[in-house]
Amino acid sequence: MKIKMNEFDYIDKYFKPLTNKFASDLKNDAAIINQKSSFDLIISTDTLCEGIHFFGHEDPADIAKKSLRVNLSDMAAMGANPIFYNLALSIPKIRASQFIPKFAKGLKDDQETFGIKLIGGDLTSSLKHINITITIFGETSKSKSIPRDGAKTGDCLYVSGILGLSKIGLNNFNSKYECFQEAKLKYLLPQPRVDLGISLKNIANSMIDISDGLIQDATHLAKNSNLSIEIDIDKLPLPNFTTLNKSTILNSALYGGDDYELLFSCNPFHEIYLKKLSSKINIKLTKIGIFNKYEGKYIKFKNSQLEPKNKSYLHF
Amino acid sequence: MKIKMNEFDYIDKYFKPLTNKFASDLKNDAAIINQKSSFDLIISTDTLCEGIHFFGHEDPADIAKKSLRVNLSDMAAMGANPIFYNLALSIPKIRASQFIPKFAKGLKDDQETFGIKLIGGDLTSSLKHINITITIFGETSKSKSIPRDGAKTGDCLYVSGILGLSKIGLNNFNSKYECFQEAKLKYLLPQPRVDLGISLKNIANSMIDISDGLIQDATHLAKNSNLSIEIDIDKLPLPNFTTLNKSTILNSALYGGDDYELLFSCNPFHEIYLKKLSSKINIKLTKIGIFNKYEGKYIKFKNSQLEPKNKSYLHF
Repeated sequence: MKIKMNEFDYIDKYFKPLTNKFASDLKNDAAIINQKSSFDLIISTDTLCEGIHFFGHEDPADIAKKSLRVNLSDMAAMGANPIFYNLALSIPKIRASQFIPKFAKGLKDDQETFGIKLIGGDLTSSLKHINITITIFGETSKSKSIPRDGAKTGDCLYVSGILGLSKIGLNNFNSKYECFQEAKLKYLLPQPRVDLGISLKNIANSMIDISDGLIQDATHLAKNSNLSIEIDIDKLPLPNFTTLNKSTILNSALYGGDDYELLFSCNPFHEIYLKKLSSKINIKLTKIGIFNKYEGKYIKFKNSQLEPKNKSYLHF
Repeated sequence: MKIKMNEFDYIDKYFKPLTNKFASDLKNDAAIINQKSSFDLIISTDTLCEGIHFFGHEDPADIAKKSLRVNLSDMAAMGANPIFYNLALSIPKIRASQFIPKFAKGLKDDQETFGIKLIGGDLTSSLKHINITITIFGETSKSKSIPRDGAKTGDCLYVSGILGLSKIGLNNFNSKYECFQEAKLKYLLPQPRVDLGISLKNIANSMIDISDGLIQDATHLAKNSNLSIEIDIDKLPLPNFTTLNKSTILNSALYGGDDYELLFSCNPFHEIYLKKLSSKINIKLTKIGIFNKYEGKYIKFKNSQLEPKNKSYLHF
């Protein structure tokens, strides 16, 4: 006999086991956080909508992980240590019993991977599509988070990992070629650079995670710091695909979203530290540009006939 | 000439003006909160889905206010002072330009009414329906929030305001009878009992806001406190409708959702204080039951042939 579960049953069975003490076993109308005056609390929210941010036919565990990871990436971008999150999940009635158990398992696995816990949220039905909103909480020592607006003239621009992989994975999602496996995995399950972000707290003057494409997110750093960035596109850490032409790869790196790599600025004298850090944490760190005084354009390309374009993903 | 706005334009124009200093003008990946060790931070999330929690054809300003108010009601239920919130709004592309300006105006008005500010969030497109998730933050002095599980044997059960109005408003939403105006307004724009909640911080042993109907929410208090509640249904504060029969009104009060009144337990010796408080803040407070030792049923009706039913709104 199949027992019909209501939202309280789902919460008790699948979400309560994911919580920490702040959630008081989800018994109250809210979570209760004991504040610590020597730390700042860092708060960010990211939504994933079915049909916009994910297809809907993926393994629900992977959807759960991606939801958490895009939020963890925001903590990384602030140099914050993620500690807990809350979750609002809206899902059509007829899909709940199939989706929720696998989704909760994905959360559980990534909670263990990243050392975070659930503190509360809301579970509701929706008419047609799944909507997942996570608010994540991290902490830094007082005034130690890394802003977007702190870049200085002469700062170098660094990026972690490889750029464009996620966009190539998305564009070739239905391809059976083995060579796209890594790219597809990067699209499905981004790797938030949490440890790197924390390691940069006394190094980076400004930082952002690349969710909307290198050019758009570099523009945020430049604009908020009121500076210009000269990017050396010959230096970009690009993936190798013999089946793709160079301009497809370059465009994916410049304008493709969902890479979730860290893009940061720092004084050139940190170069040696960054080399050591890179080999210690086994994440490639590449110097790709320099910050100059603002003179009419936020982004320029060094020694290139290409011009930066405004063609990253926009919702509206 | 109509200028096409993207999400950054909407955020700059409509949401940035709603923020406080913690949002840093929405320049970063996250808000930065300075913690205060003598206070607890109280955090709650409520989602409103189009077609489930609201029709979609209401004035967007009213949808905004309702989204905030259901969250404010959770703060009230904890006895917490609401201070800020973040917002995740997902909306189909073609509706954004009409919806967002009015929606933001509704937020602005209620921010002034309730003394709260925006600290961040996410604005995305969705395929078909609007989804609004607000995470609200309040504070109480350390360990002073009011839980659901603190009721004691002999506690009286009190409720604020009138019960069932919202459900009657919803059921008669398209009626032109003048007599349903107040009820429709209560459904559209609930009144979170924030001041009352704060006033009860040294009085109430347990508290909840009635969002899912009196019986369901009273059951949460009883179950979490491991007690039974005897409700005197002759004492319920019911609305007057000469056009409705008594059982329709009673059922709306017992099982109708969206009332957002406070339901709390306290020692009988607070009766005189509560009478004074009620006339001071001009909110009706009615004693409707008593907590007894648990003996097999969480809710009983006093001197009635009716039995409490399990028929409140469930999402799944």
